[in-house]
Amino acid sequence: MKVLIIGGGGMVGQKLARRLADLGALDGKPITGLTLADINDPAPVEAPFPVSCVTCDISDRASVDQIIASDVDMIYLLAAVVSAHAEEDFDFGYRINMYGTINVLDRARALGTRPRLVFTSSIAVFGGEVPQPYGDNSALNPQISYGTQKLIGELLVEDYSRKGFIDGRGFRLPTISVRPGAPNRAASGFMSSIFREPLQGVAANCPVDRDFPHFYLSPRQCVENLVRAAEIDEAAFGKRRCMTMPGRVWTIGQMIDAMTAVAGPEPARLITWEPQPEIAGILDGWRLDIRPEKAASLGMKADDSFEDNIRYFLEDDLPG
Amino acid sequence: MKVLIIGGGGMVGQKLARRLADLGALDGKPITGLTLADINDPAPVEAPFPVSCVTCDISDRASVDQIIASDVDMIYLLAAVVSAHAEEDFDFGYRINMYGTINVLDRARALGTRPRLVFTSSIAVFGGEVPQPYGDNSALNPQISYGTQKLIGELLVEDYSRKGFIDGRGFRLPTISVRPGAPNRAASGFMSSIFREPLQGVAANCPVDRDFPHFYLSPRQCVENLVRAAEIDEAAFGKRRCMTMPGRVWTIGQMIDAMTAVAGPEPARLITWEPQPEIAGILDGWRLDIRPEKAASLGMKADDSFEDNIRYFLEDDLPG
Repeated sequence: MKVLIIGGGGMVGQKLARRLADLGALDGKPITGLTLADINDPAPVEAPFPVSCVTCDISDRASVDQIIASDVDMIYLLAAVVSAHAEEDFDFGYRINMYGTINVLDRARALGTRPRLVFTSSIAVFGGEVPQPYGDNSALNPQISYGTQKLIGELLVEDYSRKGFIDGRGFRLPTISVRPGAPNRAASGFMSSIFREPLQGVAANCPVDRDFPHFYLSPRQCVENLVRAAEIDEAAFGKRRCMTMPGRVWTIGQMIDAMTAVAGPEPARLITWEPQPEIAGILDGWRLDIRPEKAASLGMKADDSFEDNIRYFLEDDLPG
Repeated sequence: MKVLIIGGGGMVGQKLARRLADLGALDGKPITGLTLADINDPAPVEAPFPVSCVTCDISDRASVDQIIASDVDMIYLLAAVVSAHAEEDFDFGYRINMYGTINVLDRARALGTRPRLVFTSSIAVFGGEVPQPYGDNSALNPQISYGTQKLIGELLVEDYSRKGFIDGRGFRLPTISVRPGAPNRAASGFMSSIFREPLQGVAANCPVDRDFPHFYLSPRQCVENLVRAAEIDEAAFGKRRCMTMPGRVWTIGQMIDAMTAVAGPEPARLITWEPQPEIAGILDGWRLDIRPEKAASLGMKADDSFEDNIRYFLEDDLPG
């Protein structure tokens, strides 16, 4: 089993690579090689199988052809320009998120081996005029370019799979929290930083009210679900291969209370509450009440409580 | 008001052009020029304003740049590779229906004038796992490449409009019946030919049962709705500019009875009932119960009864 992670240098890609190294196998088969590809050289991971790290610009078909080897069995396509960045730079967002996805799909198709491909979409496909809650059969009416690009990716994964070119499956990631490391340019960044920074004694700003509801998943459970994503027999998908990954709806207030329950009252006092006009328009569409069911029926899971999310961050990302 | 119809040589494009010639105005403004563009030289129409006919391959950006003049006010994008053809030739379908649409949108954006653009999508976006009936907020789960390509077009029209590049709006055309002229390669072809041919004394085959339900609109009402499409104030769209054009659900049996009511019993006797395996897979997904509401609220209409559809064909397409 040869595995390729495109976006293997990102937070989720790195955690997935380390988890695959722990497991040593995927979909019941020993992993015999792992390639991590990203726009910048991805950090290597220790593993009981060969790991190679390569750079790739997915908007360049020749670059994609080089990293997708003819013997690949499993492709994770995690690479993307995130929401606020794609909104600021329309052409760059399309170049990576739409044309880049097409390049990967076309290369996978050209192999003629029908590789399995796990595509990560986003809950940014939800919103607009569609009434909440959003279930598996709600219409998708994205209100930002990122959501549009991800939904186009879903549609292509469906069509390329239906035509027999790939064995694709796609999962809309909930907002990942608590996300370790430096802030990225996602408008949802505060949904991690208001925990990550205070848990390290640093102030952070929350631009929405305590009752702002949203849909979350921990990095640890996200990675478990991505492992599961590669194992699902394609017959189980029926006529739809793209769906929302399980997560849970919490308000900001509930999450902060969970942090206090796990880590005491000090971190919450470091949160400031200033509106941020530059992301207000995006966030208006993000009061998301999402009820995924299909992915749960296929064996994916949400976190039990946000206290788990806080604990996972302390255990996985703040060793010592 | 300068108008461009891309796909102006097709059945709907030609009827729309003739209707615009009758009206002399669109959206309350006198038409000062009409360009009909198509892959083959479109037939000219008589009009009280200048009409030019040009060839264009929308999959070629340079060709698109030539036909979309900088002073265009209203663009109708009707050109497409139809369902069965796009299903047979995957690359050709994407080249025209996806990349061609992108070329038109990118050229319209490059003008910097935010032209109004009417995009015709298709009810082929419906189907798959989504329960019927299909309303304005049902999920879209296309089961053929044509539906995928049209839905991608919708998403791009939404996003380019939201970003202020165009004033776009899109309408999923019901199956048009009774369609005049020669059969095209649409899998829905029989839904016109079983009326068109028998009404002219010629046999035609119906590959589905009398109780097969589907969603229809006459060419005459479709054109009226396309005129209306250009007049809708964009503020009325809210956060969703693409929707299903009104039509009505009838069974094949009801439609044949309507033909008999208008034209007597002879035509129905010329219909044969042989299954066609090559389109059976497509038609399985087409037992469509669609309930559009938003477009009706914006002033578009369905036919009152299928007897009207038969009469319009006799009046408009079989003169003498």
